[in-house]
Amino acid sequence: MLIFKIKFLPHNVEVFVPAGTSVVEAADLAKVDIEPTPCGRRGTCGKCLILCHDYSGIPTIVEKEKIDDTKLDQGWRLACQTAILQDMVIEVPGQTEGKLIKALLSRPKTAIEVLPTVIKYFLKVAPPTMTDQRADWDRVEDLLPDPELQQELDLTILRKLPELMRNNNFELTVVTYRGKVISVEAGDTATVGYGCAIDIGTTTVICSLHDLFTGQEITVASAFNPQRTYGADVLSRIDFSQTDDNLKKLQTLIIDQVNTLIDQVISQSGINRSDIYLISVVGNTTMQHLFLRLPAKYIATPPFVGALYAGLSFDSVDLGIKINDSGKVTLLPNVAGYVGADIVAGVLATNAYKYDAPCILIDVGTNAEIILAAHGILYACSAAAGPAFEGANICYGMRAEKGAIDRVWQEDGKLHYHVIGEVPALGFCGSGLVDVIAVLINIGIIDFSGRLLTSEEAVPIVGDILAGCLQENDDGLEFVIVKNSDFQKVSLTQRDIRQVQLAKGAILAGIRIMVKEMSIKLEDIELFNLAGSFGNVLNKKSAQVIGLIPKAVPLSKVEYAGNSAHVGAQINLLRADSEEIVNSLVKNIRYIELSDRSDFTEEFTNAMFFGECED
Amino acid sequence: MLIFKIKFLPHNVEVFVPAGTSVVEAADLAKVDIEPTPCGRRGTCGKCLILCHDYSGIPTIVEKEKIDDTKLDQGWRLACQTAILQDMVIEVPGQTEGKLIKALLSRPKTAIEVLPTVIKYFLKVAPPTMTDQRADWDRVEDLLPDPELQQELDLTILRKLPELMRNNNFELTVVTYRGKVISVEAGDTATVGYGCAIDIGTTTVICSLHDLFTGQEITVASAFNPQRTYGADVLSRIDFSQTDDNLKKLQTLIIDQVNTLIDQVISQSGINRSDIYLISVVGNTTMQHLFLRLPAKYIATPPFVGALYAGLSFDSVDLGIKINDSGKVTLLPNVAGYVGADIVAGVLATNAYKYDAPCILIDVGTNAEIILAAHGILYACSAAAGPAFEGANICYGMRAEKGAIDRVWQEDGKLHYHVIGEVPALGFCGSGLVDVIAVLINIGIIDFSGRLLTSEEAVPIVGDILAGCLQENDDGLEFVIVKNSDFQKVSLTQRDIRQVQLAKGAILAGIRIMVKEMSIKLEDIELFNLAGSFGNVLNKKSAQVIGLIPKAVPLSKVEYAGNSAHVGAQINLLRADSEEIVNSLVKNIRYIELSDRSDFTEEFTNAMFFGECED
Repeated sequence: MLIFKIKFLPHNVEVFVPAGTSVVEAADLAKVDIEPTPCGRRGTCGKCLILCHDYSGIPTIVEKEKIDDTKLDQGWRLACQTAILQDMVIEVPGQTEGKLIKALLSRPKTAIEVLPTVIKYFLKVAPPTMTDQRADWDRVEDLLPDPELQQELDLTILRKLPELMRNNNFELTVVTYRGKVISVEAGDTATVGYGCAIDIGTTTVICSLHDLFTGQEITVASAFNPQRTYGADVLSRIDFSQTDDNLKKLQTLIIDQVNTLIDQVISQSGINRSDIYLISVVGNTTMQHLFLRLPAKYIATPPFVGALYAGLSFDSVDLGIKINDSGKVTLLPNVAGYVGADIVAGVLATNAYKYDAPCILIDVGTNAEIILAAHGILYACSAAAGPAFEGANICYGMRAEKGAIDRVWQEDGKLHYHVIGEVPALGFCGSGLVDVIAVLINIGIIDFSGRLLTSEEAVPIVGDILAGCLQENDDGLEFVIVKNSDFQKVSLTQRDIRQVQLAKGAILAGIRIMVKEMSIKLEDIELFNLAGSFGNVLNKKSAQVIGLIPKAVPLSKVEYAGNSAHVGAQINLLRADSEEIVNSLVKNIRYIELSDRSDFTEEFTNAMFFGECED
Repeated sequence: MLIFKIKFLPHNVEVFVPAGTSVVEAADLAKVDIEPTPCGRRGTCGKCLILCHDYSGIPTIVEKEKIDDTKLDQGWRLACQTAILQDMVIEVPGQTEGKLIKALLSRPKTAIEVLPTVIKYFLKVAPPTMTDQRADWDRVEDLLPDPELQQELDLTILRKLPELMRNNNFELTVVTYRGKVISVEAGDTATVGYGCAIDIGTTTVICSLHDLFTGQEITVASAFNPQRTYGADVLSRIDFSQTDDNLKKLQTLIIDQVNTLIDQVISQSGINRSDIYLISVVGNTTMQHLFLRLPAKYIATPPFVGALYAGLSFDSVDLGIKINDSGKVTLLPNVAGYVGADIVAGVLATNAYKYDAPCILIDVGTNAEIILAAHGILYACSAAAGPAFEGANICYGMRAEKGAIDRVWQEDGKLHYHVIGEVPALGFCGSGLVDVIAVLINIGIIDFSGRLLTSEEAVPIVGDILAGCLQENDDGLEFVIVKNSDFQKVSLTQRDIRQVQLAKGAILAGIRIMVKEMSIKLEDIELFNLAGSFGNVLNKKSAQVIGLIPKAVPLSKVEYAGNSAHVGAQINLLRADSEEIVNSLVKNIRYIELSDRSDFTEEFTNAMFFGECED
């Protein structure tokens, strides 16, 4: 068997693979992140571009279709299509900006008051005597405050207890988690304890390290979710997870990534791994299923049912999470197949369940999860927005990373834009997309129905310069925002606008149906919380122009909720009462299945137009 | 490295071992039982006799001391002393009788009324629809009667649930153990469930198979405790267990043996292994520590403290017990280092805790565990009887197996005896020993102080024939019962009588101190229960003559309790309320440490005499 050496840049990581291995597989081996492939490595999305140095391998038909000839000549290929048949040096386009953005948003607005989930008791145990012959465990247990503590005991604790007591002058620390003894330690370690709050997003994983007793956030680390090489969205991942082997593969990827982030916060903070007793994990229903290696396939097809929604705790060793050997992993509960623990965490983080006045919490991703809460009554739904706001299915769409236009505005009769990383623009991320559509609606280039005016129609309205940006290409009309060369332009196509209309239509229809269900009006909404990585960078005004935020809600009532999923994970890490609160919360949430509503099609159709005529 | 072939007879098992391996090690490998070695394989007890065919290997100094020349010439050796330096055929003296005896005693006097510990629910689950999108687990849980059930869930259950439901028309059976879900099974298996009650004695292990729902005993199997090759009594086993490796070795031996017995009851009954959900284990404190691989060393030295006394349940897989993968192992609680779960099981089996009138339960082994109960108040103590009644430290002592004199009586001026297996006598077992001493006391050959009369002193009292049995040898006087040849005799020595006096003195002192502690008199005792393998074959009358049963207790009040430890294990297997009963029972038992009592020495000295002058 021929073996070739592959070097990945800029990582400078080398890996040896047998002939015929694909570049994505080599990247998996090298633990190198390749641009996510929404198509699940089938070559249909053309997103996993790589630059192969000094390479003239014959491109595949798919590559010829997706990559223009100049770039093919330069060595650009698709990682999922390129079989390795020689030593190679492969450059992977950089992806650092996205991490920073999301990680910065994860701090709660106000400090979380700690009600410890992990409690440690330092005990000076009476040594046994002829008049006090209680067993070793009994003399520990008799000093613990809660008589419930002894119901469950790990054999490993009992096995080490006798020596541990006798070698340490009968001084030891008992570690409990939610009232159960999970470990015993030599001497007095009662004040030391850490935990991680981990938000497993479909795209990004964030891990913050906290002092379990003060709540202090010590450090944070983040990375892309490595599962994204098997599909950018939950549906393609579920699709991939159909076989036991693949399900296991996806679990291993995320467990390894979580362990890497834990390694990172350990090295950043200098604490001991064994002092981490708990990780609190939050993700959408699919992410949590994959993390636990629960079959997720039935989430993908009607009636969209998962294996488990309850929030439970598990032993860290059973999941392969490398913290204290007796550590625990706790997860928040899900509500439905597409209303996951991440939005439940958001409810916890924003206190939505406590509000009397109607309050909306919305997290826009491929599915927009929406919560409407008032007087402790909660409705939830999931609107199938599609991946438009994440840059997929948009001609020049991309994630919020270096080269993405993230803001667009009109000034002095011209369009202005901002590019992440201050580099030449490569495309739009979601917030840029919303901005540009809003601007074009405002200046009249996009009409009420979502149609782009032709250049001729536009001239009398916006003048020659802006009208000149409207061009006809093979697929129809497009509005060119950036044009540096034939191969470096960024434009908004008619098709893109239709994608956004479908997305915002689904979301708005969801909001309208929930409001109807609660017998209130949109005007009654007192707080409109934007959560998630997209929601938090969205320009409120633009969002309202395109109708993502209903016009009946004044912008003064719209707030950025930050990364409320991560904050919810922190609360579940730091507060012993959160488990009970969320589990009862989830039981009371009324889930509305939009696809099963007879009024959905009508609401959806109405909501697709720009202008929201009826409110 | 030279490798030799060793064949063991009568097992007809062959094993290959490197040169220098000892015969006991080879026997371990071949899973062949060698006579237990009370000395822990140190060669000092001389009990592990084997016959090596066509063998002339040079005996060790120890072997020369322990085995007479004729036997050495015949090829008799000690298994622990013989290093293998050639191919060998080794005959191991047979040991089958003992198994039968104990196993037959394990049935409860009245059938145990079942209050199931394992409950199975057959559920017809509603398939999910668009109007009922509960998670798979939720729709199972909602059909279960007990709202407490969902607190703990095994990931393996959740992982298989979705397919299991869909492949079986949404019909499944949920298995619960003491209120917690432990497994889910396809279709309707609700009426099938088995469990094993296992008594791990220091010498013998008994395993009975029961229907968990009817309580019916289906079959039983027993074997020697394989740990006995590392010492016949608990002290030598604790001594051996001091290192982690040895502790692990002892655990592996007993776990393997329990698995072998489970295999046996499975093959005898034809049931499926996966239909066994629970094993209920009972043993003395040390046996339970070794079974769980808990450090036992501190039980051996003052203040005699174990790691754990509480009765808990563990996962069968964690202990390597091969039943249903989700099976459980439950153990009864211990009271003290030398008052174990076996005697607690006896209290449960005999209902001693329910009696108003004072009641004694006594299990005589190397330690005699004694319970005194009245009006729900229980005292416990452990009297260090030593191994005399088990045949150790007695010149011609042996266990109750083929060749042992188990009964002795006087008739027509002569001594008569019975030998187990109707073969030529090889020695006494405990009951034979008690009988012969009682007969010799009755006819006047042993006086009040325990002294054997000389032949001359005896002639006027018992006549020539019996007096002629009294002979002087190098170690002092002995009473010869059997003499077939120079090398085949069985006699009772003065030293043997002293050993029995020490043993029965310790036991009687224990009883007296407990009675004193409860402020009652021996005459008040309404029931005197004899438990354990020795107690159940003991002649009550002889036991009273030698003072093992106080003379103040009429024999009509003395009962055989059968193998009450095993019956207690059965109750813990079959009754869900037993765990709570015994755990509260154990908390109320007042343990008396005899070695710490200032009055023990006086009581002990008085109790050593034959005749019990003061009552």
